[in-house]
Amino acid sequence: MCYVTGIVMQFTTQGASEVGVKARGKFISRAVDVAEVATKRFLENQVKVDNIKINSEEFENREGRTVRVSTIDIKLKKA
Amino acid sequence: MCYVTGIVMQFTTQGASEVGVKARGKFISRAVDVAEVATKRFLENQVKVDNIKINSEEFENREGRTVRVSTIDIKLKKA
Repeated sequence: MCYVTGIVMQFTTQGASEVGVKARGKFISRAVDVAEVATKRFLENQVKVDNIKINSEEFENREGRTVRVSTIDIKLKKA
Repeated sequence: MCYVTGIVMQFTTQGASEVGVKARGKFISRAVDVAEVATKRFLENQVKVDNIKINSEEFENREGRTVRVSTIDIKLKKA
């Protein structure tokens, strides 16, 4: 809920015209929830999803194995 | 991993030119993983993410409360 408030504040009190929501791994579903609640419940007809990108990052974990983690980048924009 | 195989099979042995990956709620991050692994590891330069849509569905749970659940629809396309 805190994330939603952050987005709403940026669009309303900070006058932002674009706000990005980014997440990695299992938090990707949370990012989608946040974007949906912000655009459908709080900023309906004012802000919409402009663009969504998915990607993945590879890194070595502590055991030296290569791990791939997915990322999402949701761009919200004033309508 | 099963989902990845399913996608790869559809593009290769079934000759599909487009395959959709859909998920709801906490499985959204899994759908992104599946799309990333399929396009980056198995079908690199052959299949790419064409379009991503997020949405949400509202329904009443057993206690009669309205619950919102986010959804994702990732469209993969032959390059």
